[in-house]
Amino acid sequence: MLHFTSVKDIGSLDSAMAKAMEIKKDPFANCNLGKHRTALLLFFNSSLRTRLSTQKAAENLGMNVIVLDVQQGAWNLETRKGVVMDSDKPEHLLEAIPVMGCYADIIGVRSFARFESKEADYNEEILNKFIRYSGKPVISLESATRHPLQSFADHITIEEFKKKPKPKVVLTWAPHPRALPQAVANSFSEWMVAAGYDLTITHPQGYELDERFTHGAKIVYDQSEAFRGADFIYAKNWAAYRDPVYGKILSKDMSWMVDSRKMELTDNAYFMHCLPVRRNMIVSDRVLDSPASLVIPQAANRETAAQAVIQSILETLLKQH
Amino acid sequence: MLHFTSVKDIGSLDSAMAKAMEIKKDPFANCNLGKHRTALLLFFNSSLRTRLSTQKAAENLGMNVIVLDVQQGAWNLETRKGVVMDSDKPEHLLEAIPVMGCYADIIGVRSFARFESKEADYNEEILNKFIRYSGKPVISLESATRHPLQSFADHITIEEFKKKPKPKVVLTWAPHPRALPQAVANSFSEWMVAAGYDLTITHPQGYELDERFTHGAKIVYDQSEAFRGADFIYAKNWAAYRDPVYGKILSKDMSWMVDSRKMELTDNAYFMHCLPVRRNMIVSDRVLDSPASLVIPQAANRETAAQAVIQSILETLLKQH
Amino acid sequence: MLHFTSVKDIGSLDSAMAKAMEIKKDPFANCNLGKHRTALLLFFNSSLRTRLSTQKAAENLGMNVIVLDVQQGAWNLETRKGVVMDSDKPEHLLEAIPVMGCYADIIGVRSFARFESKEADYNEEILNKFIRYSGKPVISLESATRHPLQSFADHITIEEFKKKPKPKVVLTWAPHPRALPQAVANSFSEWMVAAGYDLTITHPQGYELDERFTHGAKIVYDQSEAFRGADFIYAKNWAAYRDPVYGKILSKDMSWMVDSRKMELTDNAYFMHCLPVRRNMIVSDRVLDSPASLVIPQAANRETAAQAVIQSILETLLKQH
Repeated sequence: MLHFTSVKDIGSLDSAMAKAMEIKKDPFANCNLGKHRTALLLFFNSSLRTRLSTQKAAENLGMNVIVLDVQQGAWNLETRKGVVMDSDKPEHLLEAIPVMGCYADIIGVRSFARFESKEADYNEEILNKFIRYSGKPVISLESATRHPLQSFADHITIEEFKKKPKPKVVLTWAPHPRALPQAVANSFSEWMVAAGYDLTITHPQGYELDERFTHGAKIVYDQSEAFRGADFIYAKNWAAYRDPVYGKILSKDMSWMVDSRKMELTDNAYFMHCLPVRRNMIVSDRVLDSPASLVIPQAANRETAAQAVIQSILETLLKQH
Repeated sequence: MLHFTSVKDIGSLDSAMAKAMEIKKDPFANCNLGKHRTALLLFFNSSLRTRLSTQKAAENLGMNVIVLDVQQGAWNLETRKGVVMDSDKPEHLLEAIPVMGCYADIIGVRSFARFESKEADYNEEILNKFIRYSGKPVISLESATRHPLQSFADHITIEEFKKKPKPKVVLTWAPHPRALPQAVANSFSEWMVAAGYDLTITHPQGYELDERFTHGAKIVYDQSEAFRGADFIYAKNWAAYRDPVYGKILSKDMSWMVDSRKMELTDNAYFMHCLPVRRNMIVSDRVLDSPASLVIPQAANRETAAQAVIQSILETLLKQH
Repeated sequence: MLHFTSVKDIGSLDSAMAKAMEIKKDPFANCNLGKHRTALLLFFNSSLRTRLSTQKAAENLGMNVIVLDVQQGAWNLETRKGVVMDSDKPEHLLEAIPVMGCYADIIGVRSFARFESKEADYNEEILNKFIRYSGKPVISLESATRHPLQSFADHITIEEFKKKPKPKVVLTWAPHPRALPQAVANSFSEWMVAAGYDLTITHPQGYELDERFTHGAKIVYDQSEAFRGADFIYAKNWAAYRDPVYGKILSKDMSWMVDSRKMELTDNAYFMHCLPVRRNMIVSDRVLDSPASLVIPQAANRETAAQAVIQSILETLLKQH
């Protein structure tokens, strides 16, 4: 593996899971693998779990880590071509990206959907520029359309807690006060299908996701029906994908919140969410604070997922020399 | 020691001082003790000395350090229970704290008094949530009511400079343009009493501190009288503690500034302050720039104090395994 | 070398270049030289290349690195003497600098010209306070009048790409929407002269630089004439140096932009710029995207230059013990 932007990059999921489990047993078994290597983690959007878990993972492997919070500084990058740069944007991505490539061995990039252009978002314009111009392996720390480190951690968590070989996993939309990207939902869907789980997606009419990600999942508009017999409930909000309302909030219907009554429809399902979670909008306090909630184990597995990915890339780099 | 939030956690002050002196002699004697351990330093309020000295101390022990400046980002945490999270606060402390606990072996937290509720401040609501929910050892990097790493550094400094076994130490209030917490004064007072020094506290009427911290100290309202025969003058501003003016400025009386004339009342006392210090409000340039000023040695001892504390916690963690 | 603020500190340029080339061959040959040493990098102004390259260089030598972004926080330092500090500035440089010196073995400082006082800028008031009060070796990460790490990297780049022993190097002014310091131009000029190159400086009337930096260079007001036969074109904007328009923009004349037509006047010259660069103001897309552009190799050499400087300082520190 050289770049990591989706489940397609991870290769065999069984091998990936085996590697993750080894890492979990001894996170420091390869503590010299990344010696004299630097990971640059670049955040165009804010981050808690991703920043901490990826930094920790890289340091477990002996790497140096440099974190750049672009959103906090006033670092406004030009991305258009052919423009006369006389505005407030002092630097072009075409210089900034290869420059960052000079000082890093692996570059992690977080760049959310901006909801300004569906085409720009779904073409992954920012992430792909890093892959094309940095000259270094690139890890998605959540891009416009996917959050693959989260999905990998979700996969690890389900493997640890599942009681059947092929559990029923339900991804449910839930209300949120702000318009959120589809990245977590897209990525979760394609990863769960790749993992061979029985995936059902439920959401209000109009919230259909891009079929390139949901292919292989059942779409059920009745949330109660979807929950029946579920082993894992994964809640997440997203804004509309379809035109002409791309990036818009179509509903804040609180009846879609995951609560105890709905969890009773399931087969003693676990509750999952990628965090941060809006209590009593996405999920009730009672469900989130119950033993069924896996949100903290999920977060803990972010470190393991990131470490498995970074380790694979380092192994590839070492083979190249 | 597992958590460090006050002088009560440090155990024997003689042992703590002995450990500090060993560290000062050779800061790298235990440079592998923290190998493969991560210290997460979380700042809800700005920091210079605490951030630098604690990071340096942890690295001297071989730890990795991750610094999170919460105040600079827009990371607005919900702390209330049972609330519908439909506002601008995207995450609840109840998730954020255990998540941080996933990726860290020791968590340092700075969270000042907010002066919104005396009860919330003096119950140490934020610090105690970290102790309760993070699952990891917690170090106070200044909490609502105490700044124990500062007090420990002050203690080391006095031990290094004292000319009598039991010096007369005077904590004096001084004017400041902004309303400041009582944390440094509280913590200094309880540490000095624990160290067995002869402690006098002087301040204008109305600035009485919480007696739980000042118990064992003499309170003298006449600053000149307090200064007489002093070996150490420790200046600090704080806002009112008593109701109903908690958190308010009662006086900016410039006659309370420490100047050369007042220092002449002492027994050639040293001048101390935790920094940052307002020149010509708290203390005159002449006193601060004189050889009697210990403010830089105090700051240097912050590293030693932090290292002694982190070393004790690491030793406890290693015993647990 | 103890401090590094200009070409005068580097000693023999031949030795410096030899050291740089060794570092480039094996950046980790001295990976334990900085063990147990901490570099504090302090930015009063924003930074991408300087921050990343200097951090990487220090870590290549085994140092710990602490980065402080002063500009992002609200850390407003008082610099005046004798003032009553009752404003929004909570700390004086006179305390802050020695405090930082307590926790660092080497201090890097970025502090641009403020254009408030030519005297303050050209006396390097901030940088010199760090040298005077920190008690530690100080590295300029671009000061009010010089950017020596950039100039050193430029020197390395020219040595790598030159086709003649003494190439013709042309520093050309180019338009920019904002008023920029003279630091890069000053520093480049004095370094190129010290390196023994044939240096020509071209700019519109009124943009004359301080002769203390340009001594030894030819000044030519006709840009086309200056470009003739050039081996290296170095573009840079700067604001006026001369009184009474110090720090002002005198011209945004777009005819000074470096484009393909002008590059044809040269002897197949390479194009150089320190970055960030305003496309289609300073230089046309076509020139910047051509094989003649050395801006990325220049940026990569920032790491090498920084490492050579830090290594020299570490060697001096080790000799002192």
